[in-house]
Amino acid sequence: MTLTTTRPLAIHGIGVLATMDGTGPHGLGLVHDAVVVCRGAAIVDCGARGAVAIPSDAERVDAGGAAVVPGLVDCHTHAVFMGDRSDEFARRARGETYAQIAAAGGGIRATMRAVRAATVDALVAAARPRLRRMLARGVTTVEMKSGYGLTVEDELKLLRAARALRDEGPVHVEATLLAAHAVPPEAASASAWTTTIVDELLPAVAREGLASACDVFVEQGAFSVDDGRRLLTRAAALGLRPRVHAEQLSWQGGARLAAEVGALAASHLEHITADDARRLADAGVVAEVLSLAQVFLRGQRAIPGRLLKDAGCVVAVGTDLNPGTAMSCDLPLAAGLAVTQSGLYAEEALAGITRDGARALGLSDRGVVAVGRRADLVVLRATSPLALVYEWAEPLAAVVVAGGRVVHRWAAG
Amino acid sequence: MTLTTTRPLAIHGIGVLATMDGTGPHGLGLVHDAVVVCRGAAIVDCGARGAVAIPSDAERVDAGGAAVVPGLVDCHTHAVFMGDRSDEFARRARGETYAQIAAAGGGIRATMRAVRAATVDALVAAARPRLRRMLARGVTTVEMKSGYGLTVEDELKLLRAARALRDEGPVHVEATLLAAHAVPPEAASASAWTTTIVDELLPAVAREGLASACDVFVEQGAFSVDDGRRLLTRAAALGLRPRVHAEQLSWQGGARLAAEVGALAASHLEHITADDARRLADAGVVAEVLSLAQVFLRGQRAIPGRLLKDAGCVVAVGTDLNPGTAMSCDLPLAAGLAVTQSGLYAEEALAGITRDGARALGLSDRGVVAVGRRADLVVLRATSPLALVYEWAEPLAAVVVAGGRVVHRWAAG
Repeated sequence: MTLTTTRPLAIHGIGVLATMDGTGPHGLGLVHDAVVVCRGAAIVDCGARGAVAIPSDAERVDAGGAAVVPGLVDCHTHAVFMGDRSDEFARRARGETYAQIAAAGGGIRATMRAVRAATVDALVAAARPRLRRMLARGVTTVEMKSGYGLTVEDELKLLRAARALRDEGPVHVEATLLAAHAVPPEAASASAWTTTIVDELLPAVAREGLASACDVFVEQGAFSVDDGRRLLTRAAALGLRPRVHAEQLSWQGGARLAAEVGALAASHLEHITADDARRLADAGVVAEVLSLAQVFLRGQRAIPGRLLKDAGCVVAVGTDLNPGTAMSCDLPLAAGLAVTQSGLYAEEALAGITRDGARALGLSDRGVVAVGRRADLVVLRATSPLALVYEWAEPLAAVVVAGGRVVHRWAAG
Repeated sequence: MTLTTTRPLAIHGIGVLATMDGTGPHGLGLVHDAVVVCRGAAIVDCGARGAVAIPSDAERVDAGGAAVVPGLVDCHTHAVFMGDRSDEFARRARGETYAQIAAAGGGIRATMRAVRAATVDALVAAARPRLRRMLARGVTTVEMKSGYGLTVEDELKLLRAARALRDEGPVHVEATLLAAHAVPPEAASASAWTTTIVDELLPAVAREGLASACDVFVEQGAFSVDDGRRLLTRAAALGLRPRVHAEQLSWQGGARLAAEVGALAASHLEHITADDARRLADAGVVAEVLSLAQVFLRGQRAIPGRLLKDAGCVVAVGTDLNPGTAMSCDLPLAAGLAVTQSGLYAEEALAGITRDGARALGLSDRGVVAVGRRADLVVLRATSPLALVYEWAEPLAAVVVAGGRVVHRWAAG
């Protein structure tokens, strides 16, 4: 007797499969007229039609000549939050400064108050539709940061919400502790809050296994390089991989710190230098280009995506989804903006939301279509994989497969 | 006996109605706890709940406390086209120039060849899903330009496709003749093609009533101010309202021409001067800000939305949907980008896709919620009307009413 869960899944009729394995023109690893066979959560066979045998008992998905890409990976989000900051968006447009908005009770502290007042269940309920929106765009893996609680208990609450969302599926959630997102109003200083994180929060997170990484916002008014070093060194000792928000609003040395501590990734990077970029490349730190946030924030300085690529960096692209500076769940749009605003090639941007997005999370089991990899796949409503970066703001996933199961189908409407 | 078509429609439970009538803070004309009653294609009553009587036989739509806005108006699209130019997008990202791409058979001529080879039915079938995408975002009125046929017969074919889409509904289509979009490969010169348009095409379009406006792309390599004057003067004499693509890639004097001929609207305007902006304002020419195209084209120069507003211009926002420089059906995203990239206030951008979008089309019957106006309304999946410009790339229409009928409901997924 065969368990139904072991029944294989075959995607056939694939016009073009973008394996994203780095081979062929621009590294897309294209296979025309392809078939992919999955068993359990893994890909067990894939290639041109004639070279792949479809098991007779397989559940079949006909791609109808469309393009197929790996399940998308959003390597940088703040997707668990409460409240709406559309009024702040309108006030910034009228020229109010962030300092004025913060003084009037707005900004990150508005989200913090809403999060502190919420239960884990309420946080999960608020984030669930965001994950559904992502899934409709082909996203099967999402990184999710804490950072709006800013007390030990409220940061743990955010990570518990992330874990509940992970348990719920089908989108795979990777949680990151970002308690060093802002200095809490109750803290004496950034350094004092860093000490609380190091002494209390990190050990608790490690004990409960609530996060796989630890991030820090290195910036004026937020955390210094020294705070960051202390935090990330302790995190690494506890098994949490370091990440850094670096050089977003000004040059502070966060990217150098990321290279020094061997971080998984450094994000934003608007003010990075060529020397910094080489250090990231040499240290194997993935550069996260968050062009959607740069555009949403009306930043005057573009993210130097070409500089990063020319230095040899692996470049990932994320949405940075958050209610203050990037209110969008649309990862393919972020990739399109990374092309036009940050100088990535279209193929590099596509790699940034698949293969290189997975690398930013340290996940070697996904982001590429190959035997043995996780069976996360997207059948597009398009014949070219480049449609993902070219057709803006349209959910293009026809069928989404996560862990070998069909988890989403486009409802024509 | 009452005909079912005359049964009124009442939208109740409106948390906040943005009438966009120019009153109140930032001109949003907000009414809290509101009701709108429609009969036939018109709004017959609207206001705060206690002040509006819902007819006992009315079909009811419960907004559930959500925000309601006028049906959105996309004042500038090239929505009827064939073919895919994702490869060109990728080539431009790698640094190829438009001239190189055109020399290799790409660019606008690629679309032209595909359009020439297509039937009216094929053009309609290609455009229909684009209109559905627009409808899901709350768009009930769309301007649609010809300009990819570039022969007399093929331009008429595009306009006949637009008319078929208009007849089909429910999105209202306003067609514009833009034969002066590019110089056809067969034409001896821009001037010679202008003569053909003036002598042959415009009279045929006027005879068949195929377009309500005539547009021209005034630019180096396209059409001169003199070509434009000759064309638009003739168009106006035949009852087609003038429009101008002006100062997009360089300053050519197109905006001055628009003011001189009393055009409905001038579009793009990246290179406009303060003097030009005053001329537009004085002449009552609506300025069309197409920020989505500016971002998609990776233009180095932002559209000076504030300059236009400060000069007193009415400013509309359109997608510019087209396969070369703005591959998106998302009008609210265009409005969001007009805020962050072109300096419009959030409320101005919202007006730009409602009230002022309608003004760009010379349609005084829509774009505002008021008694006697067309019953085009959108119930949002949001409690603030500003969500439209703040939440990027998510179809936010819960219920769309066009001409007094419910024509779209969001399918949760």
